[in-house]
Amino acid sequence: MSYPEKFQGIAVLDHKDYKHPKKVSFDPKPFHPSDVDIRILNCSVCGSDCHSAQGNWGMKPKPHVVGHEVIGLVTKLGPNCTSGLKLGDRVGVGAQVFSCLECNRCKSNNEPYCNKFVTTYGQAYEDGYVSQGGYASHIRVHEHFVVPIPENIPSELAAPWMCGGLTVYSPLIRNGCGPNKKVAILGLGGLGHMALQIAKGLGAEVYAISRTSAKKEDAQKLGADHFIATKEEPNWTEKYYDTFDLILICAGSLTDVDFTTLPNVMKVGGAIRSVSIPDESQMLTLQPFGLVGVSIGNSCLGSMEELKQLIKLVSEKDLKPWIETIPISEKGVQEAFEKMERGDVRYRITFVDFDKEFGN
Amino acid sequence: MSYPEKFQGIAVLDHKDYKHPKKVSFDPKPFHPSDVDIRILNCSVCGSDCHSAQGNWGMKPKPHVVGHEVIGLVTKLGPNCTSGLKLGDRVGVGAQVFSCLECNRCKSNNEPYCNKFVTTYGQAYEDGYVSQGGYASHIRVHEHFVVPIPENIPSELAAPWMCGGLTVYSPLIRNGCGPNKKVAILGLGGLGHMALQIAKGLGAEVYAISRTSAKKEDAQKLGADHFIATKEEPNWTEKYYDTFDLILICAGSLTDVDFTTLPNVMKVGGAIRSVSIPDESQMLTLQPFGLVGVSIGNSCLGSMEELKQLIKLVSEKDLKPWIETIPISEKGVQEAFEKMERGDVRYRITFVDFDKEFGN
Repeated sequence: MSYPEKFQGIAVLDHKDYKHPKKVSFDPKPFHPSDVDIRILNCSVCGSDCHSAQGNWGMKPKPHVVGHEVIGLVTKLGPNCTSGLKLGDRVGVGAQVFSCLECNRCKSNNEPYCNKFVTTYGQAYEDGYVSQGGYASHIRVHEHFVVPIPENIPSELAAPWMCGGLTVYSPLIRNGCGPNKKVAILGLGGLGHMALQIAKGLGAEVYAISRTSAKKEDAQKLGADHFIATKEEPNWTEKYYDTFDLILICAGSLTDVDFTTLPNVMKVGGAIRSVSIPDESQMLTLQPFGLVGVSIGNSCLGSMEELKQLIKLVSEKDLKPWIETIPISEKGVQEAFEKMERGDVRYRITFVDFDKEFGN
Repeated sequence: MSYPEKFQGIAVLDHKDYKHPKKVSFDPKPFHPSDVDIRILNCSVCGSDCHSAQGNWGMKPKPHVVGHEVIGLVTKLGPNCTSGLKLGDRVGVGAQVFSCLECNRCKSNNEPYCNKFVTTYGQAYEDGYVSQGGYASHIRVHEHFVVPIPENIPSELAAPWMCGGLTVYSPLIRNGCGPNKKVAILGLGGLGHMALQIAKGLGAEVYAISRTSAKKEDAQKLGADHFIATKEEPNWTEKYYDTFDLILICAGSLTDVDFTTLPNVMKVGGAIRSVSIPDESQMLTLQPFGLVGVSIGNSCLGSMEELKQLIKLVSEKDLKPWIETIPISEKGVQEAFEKMERGDVRYRITFVDFDKEFGN
């Protein structure tokens, strides 16, 4: 059986052997009257995909299809869909596919903080169906979590904004990133390279903070006005005393971040925000008095309203993630996971050629 | 010799024997053309006084005169004073007596965060003179750190606002305390009892959070709309899920605060702010993911602009700290320190009768 009875995907069947995913058929979630079916054109690879594939965030039911930076075409609309989507529209889906849409958080554009949040893959809906991601032929999702893609954004370049882009856009915009603000992006990987572009696009004076100068040229091309290599300037927290309105930590781990000295580079009232999702065991140790006048916090994804704002900004400013493309297939997913593990990605992988692997 | 050559004070001469302070004469700081001399009428007792007297925050040169909630009368004005103070004016001095007044922080109403900050007692000015506090006949201070007291605020009730009141006012006002906001005050001591009144005065819906119900009635009289006894409602962080815009931690120590569960009661974007000054060794351990959508930070004193705003609010809303008065003297300071150590103060001690001890 194929669509609409079955979807196809490249699935992890064993966390220990996650680098050898297999092509499978799987049951889509039951079609809800507000759901949309999307035939997938592209899906980018987020660090979360690798964590989840390896079981770092808990054992997942198998088959486990990851991927949550999805671009595709609308192939079916439920009778209760009211958002104006049409068959054939090119749309995107990010890392969230459900929330209650009724609580205070949902009603205040804070869906990612809803108690009933369901992630795009590997999490059970209330009916028990475990969500499946975008390394697949199709995805079925409530229309609220679908965003239209403007014509001038190519699909393979649109995909990375869906999760990675939104994840950094939300804390930037919520903490005042804009003209006359000095904003630092710490960590220059998949998220950081989008954060630099967004911060610059929002009009801030942008600093890239990395351990070495290896990515200095890249950072400048991506929009950084300044570059700080922390291992090469050991006294950087003194040199940049009282500088930043906002630091966004985009490093994959917080282990290397010295929260005892970091507040020193912040302006009074400045915000240190992180989008890292550390291992469950990783604790943060702070000297409270070091935080005097400065606040620290984590951020999780962003709202659908923010995703729409972001896509508008991307379209208007012609922002472009730096991607390499890999045809989707068992071998392609393996290659992507291996590159991610080696840190050999500058700066995002987007899977392509879904029609060749899964047909139309 | 007496004023103006010498000031008199009740001084700690030995940190180990801090409960037996002695009356001494001491040299005032060299008179700067922007300085003001103040004959002291009242000084309240802040927890910091006891910490500093005991040497908890480092050994201090002796004699060590503490006290930084000072009300008095202007007796001398330097030739460069331009703030409009007049001889005989009733004024207040808080916990800060100097900053550079030229840096970005000073120029943006952030004097407490200036690198050249000098605390009211026990800290050396650039010329080496170690500041002396308000358990004394007089205080000499740069006019910038002097605030006029409106007629309708009695001196003994004005004193506690100078440090304690300002310390809680600043983080409240900087984090949006006001109408339509739910604000919790955690810890109901000297600072907390002022924070409740200020938060209510600013128009917020106010929650008092304490370990037991012992202070429930007091909290309600002080302006709390709601009261939470955390030891009596072990599931309080579930019951009050998604409730607060702001929690101000006024507890003396952070040891009892569970930062793993506290974010649960915050709204998305909510602020947890602390005014605790823990021992230097006390570290804060957080699970970073617990802070999702919530920020945490410390706050230090407040600006002189904020002190003026606070005094205006106190005057207009007729806010009154709950005080007990003790005549200033060696015995009086001993009694105050003993009461502070026992936690037997509801909620602030103000020293009175300075004229009897030190003359006019």
